[in-house]
Amino acid sequence: MEAPFTPHLSRRAAGLPPNAFTDLLPLMSDPTVAVLSQGVPPSSTFPLSSATFCLSDGSSVSLDAARMALAQRYPQFAWEELRDWLHRHVATLHRPPCAGWAVCLAAGSTSSLHILFSALADRGDCVLVEEHTFTAALDILASAGIRAVPVALDEHGLLPASLDAQCAALAAEGLSPRFLYTIPVGQNPTGSRLPEARYAEVYAICRAWGLSIIEDDPYFYQQHRADDDGDGEVPGLARLGKSYLSVDEDGRVVRLDSFSKILAPGFRIGWVSGAPAFVRLYDAHAFISSQWGCSLSMMLLSQLLAQEGWFEARVRELQRTLRARCRALVRAAREHLGERVSFRTPPAGMFLWCTFNGTPPSTRELIAAMRQHGVCVLPSSFTSATKTDSCASVRLSFVLDDAQLDEAALRLGQLVDQVEARAGDAS
Amino acid sequence: MEAPFTPHLSRRAAGLPPNAFTDLLPLMSDPTVAVLSQGVPPSSTFPLSSATFCLSDGSSVSLDAARMALAQRYPQFAWEELRDWLHRHVATLHRPPCAGWAVCLAAGSTSSLHILFSALADRGDCVLVEEHTFTAALDILASAGIRAVPVALDEHGLLPASLDAQCAALAAEGLSPRFLYTIPVGQNPTGSRLPEARYAEVYAICRAWGLSIIEDDPYFYQQHRADDDGDGEVPGLARLGKSYLSVDEDGRVVRLDSFSKILAPGFRIGWVSGAPAFVRLYDAHAFISSQWGCSLSMMLLSQLLAQEGWFEARVRELQRTLRARCRALVRAAREHLGERVSFRTPPAGMFLWCTFNGTPPSTRELIAAMRQHGVCVLPSSFTSATKTDSCASVRLSFVLDDAQLDEAALRLGQLVDQVEARAGDAS
Repeated sequence: MEAPFTPHLSRRAAGLPPNAFTDLLPLMSDPTVAVLSQGVPPSSTFPLSSATFCLSDGSSVSLDAARMALAQRYPQFAWEELRDWLHRHVATLHRPPCAGWAVCLAAGSTSSLHILFSALADRGDCVLVEEHTFTAALDILASAGIRAVPVALDEHGLLPASLDAQCAALAAEGLSPRFLYTIPVGQNPTGSRLPEARYAEVYAICRAWGLSIIEDDPYFYQQHRADDDGDGEVPGLARLGKSYLSVDEDGRVVRLDSFSKILAPGFRIGWVSGAPAFVRLYDAHAFISSQWGCSLSMMLLSQLLAQEGWFEARVRELQRTLRARCRALVRAAREHLGERVSFRTPPAGMFLWCTFNGTPPSTRELIAAMRQHGVCVLPSSFTSATKTDSCASVRLSFVLDDAQLDEAALRLGQLVDQVEARAGDAS
Repeated sequence: MEAPFTPHLSRRAAGLPPNAFTDLLPLMSDPTVAVLSQGVPPSSTFPLSSATFCLSDGSSVSLDAARMALAQRYPQFAWEELRDWLHRHVATLHRPPCAGWAVCLAAGSTSSLHILFSALADRGDCVLVEEHTFTAALDILASAGIRAVPVALDEHGLLPASLDAQCAALAAEGLSPRFLYTIPVGQNPTGSRLPEARYAEVYAICRAWGLSIIEDDPYFYQQHRADDDGDGEVPGLARLGKSYLSVDEDGRVVRLDSFSKILAPGFRIGWVSGAPAFVRLYDAHAFISSQWGCSLSMMLLSQLLAQEGWFEARVRELQRTLRARCRALVRAAREHLGERVSFRTPPAGMFLWCTFNGTPPSTRELIAAMRQHGVCVLPSSFTSATKTDSCASVRLSFVLDDAQLDEAALRLGQLVDQVEARAGDAS
């Protein structure tokens, strides 16, 4: 039985013809059938026969001839092992309450956002986003002519009262927003982690207003807890906590995960999980666009993940590394930036969000100063859902090593001095 | 200096904000700058350190530590070697006359079609396509609400006179089609190869009507010349002949190539070439969707292609294999299908297009008969730009080996017998 919520479909999604190949697939995968319908070069001409990958931890994994043959075929023939692993993983981690929830593969989360935004909203529609959010998400919405209505953030993430107020304000204009797009953990760019209690609050508001929730959660595994003074062990996989998927009784959540922020972006592989209606919708559109990503990556990832304990060890190492680097940047920022900026040590993600205590520079002024001082940060105008030229904050990623982080903060201190001196001259 | 033609942009393309990162990229790639703007895990946590791939021809290629580091980063850091190789390759093969022509990478041609169709036409617009064409292309157009106007094919491909007549008919309705989408070589599904003289004719008509040309040419390297009784050598890379890109003086052509039909689909890598306006447009949209494909595939392909003579040897092997299998299917079809179908031996591609000489079955009838006889072919209703339930033809791919092709043709003969007997009963 499926959950009762039915997402609003865009005209693009409603107009997609049923996949004609659905009728052929049972025949094409039946070994007794002579299949003359495929459009792929003879497998005898495929260039690769096997491979061995040396891993950073000193071990290795191989793709044998049979797996390498699948790695060279279309993704539908390569995804089975990885999708099965992910299904078990999602079941353990999120225990989704939604009936019939499913998982499918994705060619990275940006591709998934492109597909889902177009499938769930039309030109002229409005949707809700955090007041600061992922730049590419804002660009996708802008190009599709979908209005991004900002919801306020506090130091813990999305504010339920602001979400409710914006829905009410839109309703007063006669508008029904199509979905909430949110980055709940290691929020990009502010680094917050949504408190457990807010999930239910936000979910209830979305239920009341009939909203789908697109949960973009690439930093979920990056919960390093650098803000935790107790210096306890990192969460690993066992203590990652809630997600919208984990509270989704109605089937209104579609969740995006990505190996890009856990292992490496070069695989270009993520996964989409949630209510069957969303996963079917995603699959239908991936078939005519991204094709779900690279088969070679899928086969390699499934072999990496098949090693007992390997994934958890990688996640712990990532969390420990990010914790140490976050604290190093915080120390360097305290030393070199002092009272000129405000920030909170983030519990998750890769970013420190620094707000200028003095007059904010313009984007142009900030970039000119970055050139002069040899330091590059992300201006808050890039992440603002409301068009602005003023940069009240900057996003600093702490993925460099300690010495580099110290030098970067030193240069940034000089940059802020100059920006403030200019602001002083101007006033 | 750029070529003078300016493509019509869809509202989606016109509404895409300028990429904010353009201002940051020079800083981010300057080694003297302290870069705190990246959003990628620390490279020390990347899982892979090197790899060795054994090839089907008995040789091997490796990715050393430096290249494996790039293979794990975002595609912008991984594409350089491959893009340079492709630029030299396209220059040699097509000698594009268009000023400033460029090449960029793509996550497979279906993804490229999805991007380009959306960037070049709006809901309600009309475009021109061959009367039988790639099923996914028709589905992308349908979902985007773009009307696909069919242009007639003959045994050599697109008919210039039909293109001109359709443009005139649309003009009489007050409509300006946005582009011609065409598969000139190894046409899918009919297998024809556009005669050299028609390129200039079609190009002149497109110029007269102000049309862009989307040249989807994945079978360009599959010119096996199975129709050539002389039994000469296959064309290799030296005698592949014309393309629209090779005659594009105005900058109205955007060309799609794909490793999927040359090496293997599992890489999920193709390339887009053409006028700078198209390549810039493509890049801007890839940034917010496909991200150009998988970095690991890019690094591996660049190592494969760097081997002197390797690519040409693969292309020749592919052409020889396809020639032999095409002739095997033609022999089997003559033996087992006899006078019940008509076909021409195709000069390129993977498909034999068989037209029923008797009453055409419906799609449902054909699929039921396929199940009964244990054979699977592509019904022409799947490829028809005009909605129809009647299957006048079927597309047979000849990628199986000879014995399988004979058995498949035998079963197909039984299927046609049954379909014709039923049609006889019904009349």
